[in-house]
Amino acid sequence: MSSLTLTEAHEIISTGLAKAEATGVLIAISVVDPRGDLIAMARMDGAPWRTPAISRGKAIASACFGRSSGEMTDGSQSPVMRAVMAQLDGDFIPGQGALPVFRDGVLVGAAGGSGAASQEDEDAVRAGIEAAGLSATA
Amino acid sequence: MSSLTLTEAHEIISTGLAKAEATGVLIAISVVDPRGDLIAMARMDGAPWRTPAISRGKAIASACFGRSSGEMTDGSQSPVMRAVMAQLDGDFIPGQGALPVFRDGVLVGAAGGSGAASQEDEDAVRAGIEAAGLSATA
Amino acid sequence: MSSLTLTEAHEIISTGLAKAEATGVLIAISVVDPRGDLIAMARMDGAPWRTPAISRGKAIASACFGRSSGEMTDGSQSPVMRAVMAQLDGDFIPGQGALPVFRDGVLVGAAGGSGAASQEDEDAVRAGIEAAGLSATA
Amino acid sequence: MSSLTLTEAHEIISTGLAKAEATGVLIAISVVDPRGDLIAMARMDGAPWRTPAISRGKAIASACFGRSSGEMTDGSQSPVMRAVMAQLDGDFIPGQGALPVFRDGVLVGAAGGSGAASQEDEDAVRAGIEAAGLSATA
Repeated sequence: MSSLTLTEAHEIISTGLAKAEATGVLIAISVVDPRGDLIAMARMDGAPWRTPAISRGKAIASACFGRSSGEMTDGSQSPVMRAVMAQLDGDFIPGQGALPVFRDGVLVGAAGGSGAASQEDEDAVRAGIEAAGLSATA
Repeated sequence: MSSLTLTEAHEIISTGLAKAEATGVLIAISVVDPRGDLIAMARMDGAPWRTPAISRGKAIASACFGRSSGEMTDGSQSPVMRAVMAQLDGDFIPGQGALPVFRDGVLVGAAGGSGAASQEDEDAVRAGIEAAGLSATA
Repeated sequence: MSSLTLTEAHEIISTGLAKAEATGVLIAISVVDPRGDLIAMARMDGAPWRTPAISRGKAIASACFGRSSGEMTDGSQSPVMRAVMAQLDGDFIPGQGALPVFRDGVLVGAAGGSGAASQEDEDAVRAGIEAAGLSATA
Repeated sequence: MSSLTLTEAHEIISTGLAKAEATGVLIAISVVDPRGDLIAMARMDGAPWRTPAISRGKAIASACFGRSSGEMTDGSQSPVMRAVMAQLDGDFIPGQGALPVFRDGVLVGAAGGSGAASQEDEDAVRAGIEAAGLSATA
């Protein structure tokens, strides 16, 4: 299983937080490996305490299914989605703000944001993924 | 309580996985006894980590009510279904992919798949049940 | 991350269960990947319902620390072990019966047994690991 | 409530990880605010999946009581400690590896490591705290 490196995760986070700062919002960004295990997380000064866990939960959902977490909201009342949310005790969040990360077409993890409007959360991590020379689509 | 044997469970799994391989999908199959307790599970190389738990949850739902788990989706927002899902912490999944297993008209367990489109999950376990000389209907 | 294949997992299980049968005990064997996610599980006819979850919990502990789960019992009251047991809701069992699995010195998973005396559980999985041409030590 | 800044957290992490690298061990470091909420976490490439949660749990314990988490092990079987560990579902770990962080005598958070011998975990975060111009003692 190929995974994002810590160096790549930090590139995603630093560009993503710079994007949020330019937008004037306070967020946290979590980066996980393909299994959903955390590689790195950073919360901006002043971003709410809840944002690390929520950004991580979105990233876990995105890594688990290899899709943007926002695309999963429509199906989030399906029995499978409800079950996975229960199995992971809330650490799986099919809500907008995270994107999968692909390197040469291979899923290597996901990045999720929390703290701003969900489109802004997603825009921040997308900027980070692109700055790291990676892609949010296979 | 009459139950599937381990030999039967392995027949269901090996035929089911061969069917999935022929279809070109990667799945896990779980086989449970009438109580919903796991008899055997196998995950194909490359099938996602989430598939053992989801295939098992579908099989548990199917064994619990003696019905295909897909038939239960429409009613899955009822208070009873929501309660059972909560009682079992997400290990009860009324979503398509599992079928009950009958021997001579008696419920002896259930088999569930996860990893492909839900119809393909169901098709794989149906092939396995039939290959084992058992039936998905009373 | 290199992992046991399903074929290897089934070799471990079939030899391990044959060993248990020769000993006259009823067990379940779980095989997990290095992350602790289940690859395959089989429960002998007549082995108690609790054995799949217990064998899996021992295998998870063994994979998590790359050690025999039995060696971890002495330290199981340490704060870290108590915390991991709580974090995983009981799905981490530092008790005898599981062994890590190495291929060419690399940890590729773990196998755990449950149902007999814990030394017999361990003996069964050791026989399986050796029959598969793998090793329980780095 | 005065808190470590994200910049300070990243200084602690980068120096701490450099110290671990020099020692030849693979760890994760978590930095939390005085409330125990995560500010930043980084896991070295190859450090086990369990290390983010364990390093965070040690840091939470350290921030909660303003003491080194290692000093708390002796009392960890007291009813209060057992209760706090239960209340936080394992996310409170009174085991060596985390230190509180003081700025001008005021508790501003804590930093914890996981992945190496617990003394090495602690040494890494101590190096980070000192490099950031902060102190592990009031």
